Amino acid sequence: MDDPEFGLRGATIAIIGLGLMGGSLALALRATKTYTQIIAIDPNESTRTQALACGAVDQASDDLLLVSHANVIVLATPVRAIIDLLPRVGAIARDNAIVIDLGSTKREIVQAMETLPARIQAVGGHPMCGKETSGFGSADANLYRNAVFALTPLTRTTAQTLAIAQALIETISAQTLVIDAERHDAIAATTSHLPFVVASALMAVASEQANQDEWLFRFAASGFRDTSRLAASDATMMSDIVLTNRANVVKMLRQYSAHLETLTQLIEHADAPTLRARFQTIAESRQKIFRR
Amino acid sequence: MDDPEFGLRGATIAIIGLGLMGGSLALALRATKTYTQIIAIDPNESTRTQALACGAVDQASDDLLLVSHANVIVLATPVRAIIDLLPRVGAIARDNAIVIDLGSTKREIVQAMETLPARIQAVGGHPMCGKETSGFGSADANLYRNAVFALTPLTRTTAQTLAIAQALIETISAQTLVIDAERHDAIAATTSHLPFVVASALMAVASEQANQDEWLFRFAASGFRDTSRLAASDATMMSDIVLTNRANVVKMLRQYSAHLETLTQLIEHADAPTLRARFQTIAESRQKIFRR
Repeated sequence: MDDPEFGLRGATIAIIGLGLMGGSLALALRATKTYTQIIAIDPNESTRTQALACGAVDQASDDLLLVSHANVIVLATPVRAIIDLLPRVGAIARDNAIVIDLGSTKREIVQAMETLPARIQAVGGHPMCGKETSGFGSADANLYRNAVFALTPLTRTTAQTLAIAQALIETISAQTLVIDAERHDAIAATTSHLPFVVASALMAVASEQANQDEWLFRFAASGFRDTSRLAASDATMMSDIVLTNRANVVKMLRQYSAHLETLTQLIEHADAPTLRARFQTIAESRQKIFRR
Repeated sequence: MDDPEFGLRGATIAIIGLGLMGGSLALALRATKTYTQIIAIDPNESTRTQALACGAVDQASDDLLLVSHANVIVLATPVRAIIDLLPRVGAIARDNAIVIDLGSTKREIVQAMETLPARIQAVGGHPMCGKETSGFGSADANLYRNAVFALTPLTRTTAQTLAIAQALIETISAQTLVIDAERHDAIAATTSHLPFVVASALMAVASEQANQDEWLFRFAASGFRDTSRLAASDATMMSDIVLTNRANVVKMLRQYSAHLETLTQLIEHADAPTLRARFQTIAESRQKIFRR
């Protein structure tokens, strides 16, 4: 990486956390053969064994010190752990190493990145893909394919660092979108964090009702399955996400509740023409977005 | 049908409404070659032309009188139209004809069926499958495959009528579930109608926010897509459904809002341990149901 022309070719990349996201990244990078070495840090021994056995990584350890060799260090843990790990990574990373993360909220992470030593480069990252299952066992070399991958630069992020991050994203066939961290979190509250809480409340009601009628889940067809899918997401990952984007998420939940109350009242008062018109407008906006 | 042993073989079946559900039923029945004739009533000329051209039906008309020949009459229109059509169908159907419907709510339909002349048999039906797209163009011969198909008998529904309805359901590879109409509507409020309203409110908030930030829908990945999918459903169909199951739907919306408010407050107060535990319980209940 001393030669900027060289880009990522021959670089050593370290991935901290071999869950769904980190594991999928390792598999996607492995498939490209661009890197000399992929090394991984994970506390779980059986995960490390599995990743080594399938050839996803060249080296794996539970010792963070291993990342001191890497040119690029990817933090792929839940958001709270990313924030906690950053000072430790900063203390051991080699000069000019690039630190990037895969966390779903960006403002608090970018703030923590600002405190890294000046000899290290950093940029926030958020690949907008995922599954409701977690762990290396769910990892998929094609998870990132065609996904939008947001990059949230720090004030001090250099153009070269951005270019290398973009090269990494292109390598895994994702699409780079450079965006301010605050703006990222405001949008993600609506498109990602709100849907998760909405799905969770739905699943909570359904579980409660299933205690009243044992046949309830025999009725759960594709509509219920899709609307509740996000509720199965990893609880630690999701509570870190909503709590590091608290103000935006609460604001969107309040706006959501207001819309829900309006619809509830139209149903309660059996206002058929207004209700139908409202559903029609909403249906058209949904059809327009996913027309492609 | 004069010979009960004969069951459905050689019967003439009439489908009123060639939308997604009626059209898919015609295609599924056609594939089995069990029937002498499949006839269809639909007000839309191009739909009728299309259904005749692809061989889904043998005869099609906009004149309801055509159903007077049928042994089995299937009402496949939105719920309100089913209720409005029933007296007209009752007036012209042949003796011992069986009337069944595909509406998503059952209590009001079964009540309307009770007023049919005694010379006609009837049973409520609800196939628990669908798509967010509508119309004959979306019809699919495999839509009913493996779906649960609820049958809600009237007090006067005979065992023979139930057996014939069940034979029809088996023909299209769906699974019969005989259930009381009131119980059906109470369950469907949670598993089907609530998810639709929940998805609609989500889409309404997202549209509103998209006016604030033009990049919003660039962030809409699989999570948003799935959670909002039902919001694209046909507005007339859905307003008929929620309004004919009003008390149950409003009750479930109130319970849903209470759960959502609890989650919102845990986020607002940054109560990480309680929030994480709550998400964990919810995630486990979701994982348990869709483990298969």
